[in-house]
Amino acid sequence: MRFSERMGRMKASAIRDVQKRIASRPDVISFAAGLPDPALFPLDDYQAALDAMVEENGQKAFQYGLTRGYGPMLEKIVERMAQKEQVTTTIDNICMTTGSQQGIALCANMFLDEGDVVLAESPSYLGGINAFLPYGATSVAVKTDDEGMDVEELDKILSTNDRVKMLYVIPNFQNPTGKAWSLERRKAFMDVINKYDVYVIEDNPYGELRFRGEFVPSLKAMDPMNKVIYLGSFSKVMAPGLRLAFMCADPAIAHQAEEIKETWDLQCNEFTQVFAVQYMKMFDFEAHIDRIKDLYRRKCDLMLQEMDKHFPEGLKIIRPEGGMFIWFELPEGLDSDKMLDAALDAGVAYIPGESFYPSDPKQNGIRLNFTMVSEEQIVKGIKILGDFLKQYC
Amino acid sequence: MRFSERMGRMKASAIRDVQKRIASRPDVISFAAGLPDPALFPLDDYQAALDAMVEENGQKAFQYGLTRGYGPMLEKIVERMAQKEQVTTTIDNICMTTGSQQGIALCANMFLDEGDVVLAESPSYLGGINAFLPYGATSVAVKTDDEGMDVEELDKILSTNDRVKMLYVIPNFQNPTGKAWSLERRKAFMDVINKYDVYVIEDNPYGELRFRGEFVPSLKAMDPMNKVIYLGSFSKVMAPGLRLAFMCADPAIAHQAEEIKETWDLQCNEFTQVFAVQYMKMFDFEAHIDRIKDLYRRKCDLMLQEMDKHFPEGLKIIRPEGGMFIWFELPEGLDSDKMLDAALDAGVAYIPGESFYPSDPKQNGIRLNFTMVSEEQIVKGIKILGDFLKQYC
Repeated sequence: MRFSERMGRMKASAIRDVQKRIASRPDVISFAAGLPDPALFPLDDYQAALDAMVEENGQKAFQYGLTRGYGPMLEKIVERMAQKEQVTTTIDNICMTTGSQQGIALCANMFLDEGDVVLAESPSYLGGINAFLPYGATSVAVKTDDEGMDVEELDKILSTNDRVKMLYVIPNFQNPTGKAWSLERRKAFMDVINKYDVYVIEDNPYGELRFRGEFVPSLKAMDPMNKVIYLGSFSKVMAPGLRLAFMCADPAIAHQAEEIKETWDLQCNEFTQVFAVQYMKMFDFEAHIDRIKDLYRRKCDLMLQEMDKHFPEGLKIIRPEGGMFIWFELPEGLDSDKMLDAALDAGVAYIPGESFYPSDPKQNGIRLNFTMVSEEQIVKGIKILGDFLKQYC
Repeated sequence: MRFSERMGRMKASAIRDVQKRIASRPDVISFAAGLPDPALFPLDDYQAALDAMVEENGQKAFQYGLTRGYGPMLEKIVERMAQKEQVTTTIDNICMTTGSQQGIALCANMFLDEGDVVLAESPSYLGGINAFLPYGATSVAVKTDDEGMDVEELDKILSTNDRVKMLYVIPNFQNPTGKAWSLERRKAFMDVINKYDVYVIEDNPYGELRFRGEFVPSLKAMDPMNKVIYLGSFSKVMAPGLRLAFMCADPAIAHQAEEIKETWDLQCNEFTQVFAVQYMKMFDFEAHIDRIKDLYRRKCDLMLQEMDKHFPEGLKIIRPEGGMFIWFELPEGLDSDKMLDAALDAGVAYIPGESFYPSDPKQNGIRLNFTMVSEEQIVKGIKILGDFLKQYC
């Protein structure tokens, strides 16, 4: 094949390879997923909304629409950004995207030239990092602690490397670690950012899944210079199959995203946009999100409790206040990827942490998902995993 | 903004600008649309299929799925490619795309390096041409007559320019001209193609809308060397709001498309894929397509009849055997874009042909759409347009 040069820079998703290894072992209890619990989909409500939509608005829902998005959907997003995120914005700041993933890809296309540098947390979301590679950009990890990105190291890098064009961060309940940045760290981070000519992608698919602790404003809410490109999503709070997400950014950036999107896929799904608006009009969406949070809190608490009971002592466990993942680290020197096959033989699956590092990978991290497993599976699977880990630690 | 270099190569859609000029004049009869007639959406059937889908398959439809596509959808496409296009294929050849537009964009990303050349018909689909520009590729028009692309000129170009990487063609009822290539021309075209190391994007969104004349096999059906990347779509035969289309190509190409798509948007809409399969299972999809063709034939015939009645003599009119558009050419020297404002004042809108040319634009073409207007509007609007044109010709 005479593929373009940039195809040579692409990297297959290591997580997908792991998922394939796991999929061939349907007998194991899997903590490897990254999916919301489908039992929470309010199917009766969705069906009623679909019925009403076809009756009231069918010809609109099935027809072509605008690249930027369905008007009432854009307005609903502006309203929710104010209510939920304390971000005052207008529809000129919004562009619908096919999942947050498309928001990341649009930013990569919009800003990155060969040789540019993207800074990210260590570890960070693999799908974000992989989206930057085809453009010949380098991803560099910035030291990250339990409060967020290390702002001193960040300042040092930015002051010495003028090829940094963009930062990619997930300040709320990050995939893979579940960490949330503290308010102080967010402020300090924005203070550093505002000194330099760089853009920040704030990927926030899990922000609405805070099931414990106090709300902390997003970076976008403390962004008077409009450097933050906020990516919001309905995938974790409504349904991922709808592929509904959005970018909230400077109007010039939202407009440029729209221009690219027109050449990439013309527009997001009109049908699911009209549906989502109809659903939010007919039902109490916020109460539905509360139900998701209640169940996830229960599952997360149960998993942490069973980990404390069965895991060997001395492991570093991150205790999340929201989201879908628990992260822990084995003693240095252990390699969670190399241990995976033996874990599968023991009857349990996880995602090894190595592939989540933009640079300088560490081998001892493990990501566990608590949303796609039942409470019974959590109790049984964590016991198996604990016994398995005790052989190594 | 510190946008990437490739943003400087993007070109805003001239058609969108025209659509905006027209949208500000809601009083006019518009032949400028490119949309299917929404009155043909079988809303009762769609509603029944949605109900059944949520009941039988709701958790699946709203959840994440695979990048390549929903399994039963891929199988249905394989089945229809055999039945409707005489193309024997497997699911390894298929990758779902968000509209054919995404198929074009994936090909551009997959194959084009700076300085590469893409050949296209003259005129051709503007949205295709614009998708190649950001990669620094040049679009070059190949002479095209009523039978299709001129194969002698094509051979001459390919034998002298080794930067040609790809061809972009729409052999059935092309947007904007409505032309369909003859069988002989298709064979001759493939004979030339097979001599060179190039790929062909065969964009076929209108192929199933043949409302007159004999079926002619697609280029993909005469492609033993697997050089053709066939793009099929459900937008014109089911509904564009679903954003369901697909690529059918060499397995290595389909796989590479899947890899890019994973970084671009993870996957197509799972919800609308599950819905489309449910609809095709419950209802007679082919009979529905027959109903579309019946109405479009009637509207097209009426428009041609009124054009013959009211238009000045001596215009070159293409009489389509399918699709959604009629193309005609004014005498050389007239500029249909410059005439548009006066036409709007007279009460009628069309799309000027100039922007459809990959290179060497001609100013005298006009595209008329016959699917989004009522029969009453056709009669009234073509009379106005005819009287208007008589002032110039």
